[in-house]
Amino acid sequence: MLWHDAGERRGIGGMNGSGQMIMLVVTFSVEEQHRAAFETGLGDFARWSLANEPGTLFYQLGQDETDPSTYRLIELYADQASLDRHSTSDAYRQVGKAVGPLLAAAPTIVRHAPVNDSLSEKV
Amino acid sequence: MLWHDAGERRGIGGMNGSGQMIMLVVTFSVEEQHRAAFETGLGDFARWSLANEPGTLFYQLGQDETDPSTYRLIELYADQASLDRHSTSDAYRQVGKAVGPLLAAAPTIVRHAPVNDSLSEKV
Repeated sequence: MLWHDAGERRGIGGMNGSGQMIMLVVTFSVEEQHRAAFETGLGDFARWSLANEPGTLFYQLGQDETDPSTYRLIELYADQASLDRHSTSDAYRQVGKAVGPLLAAAPTIVRHAPVNDSLSEKV
Repeated sequence: MLWHDAGERRGIGGMNGSGQMIMLVVTFSVEEQHRAAFETGLGDFARWSLANEPGTLFYQLGQDETDPSTYRLIELYADQASLDRHSTSDAYRQVGKAVGPLLAAAPTIVRHAPVNDSLSEKV
């Protein structure tokens, strides 16, 4: 049965149950001549964050297939403390310095309250 | 070392190596009186897809915290065949019929080529 009530799942707890999960959708604009360096820099930072930060649950960069100057990064954190640790790390400052000059505009960041929990629900 | 070349990782293979992964970002607009039913319907479908479709790698719904009428659904598929199976299933048709009437506008779907692979890279 698909349609039972799930309203109480809003703001679901993260991996350690200490708070509410947070999902960010960040949009970047990158001119063609900078895309290879951008993908290397942010792709490597994604792998670093996933491998080293337990509270960074998902960190997925993708390139818009119809507008290749646009990239979207999906970030999922266990809780606010995990996001704070991520965004104050030395590695974060390092990638900001490396990738910032490659951007055609300031990135937009949209914050979301997760409704379900893909990582615990996956087979 | 964060900054080695990762260009060859574009269009990375999915879980079964049979094709390129696909990331969708789908945006929904839902008036307040329909949000509880929308979250139940699409949240339950997310759980169903994650539990029953091996090629649906990630299926995460979130509500925009600054514009609560806006929801974004992040979908990650192993390859095009997995997306095709997902979007032609009976369950997909069922959720479309249930959730469609709750939407204030047609959803927008943006397709992306993944640059990294969050699920294999996570510790």
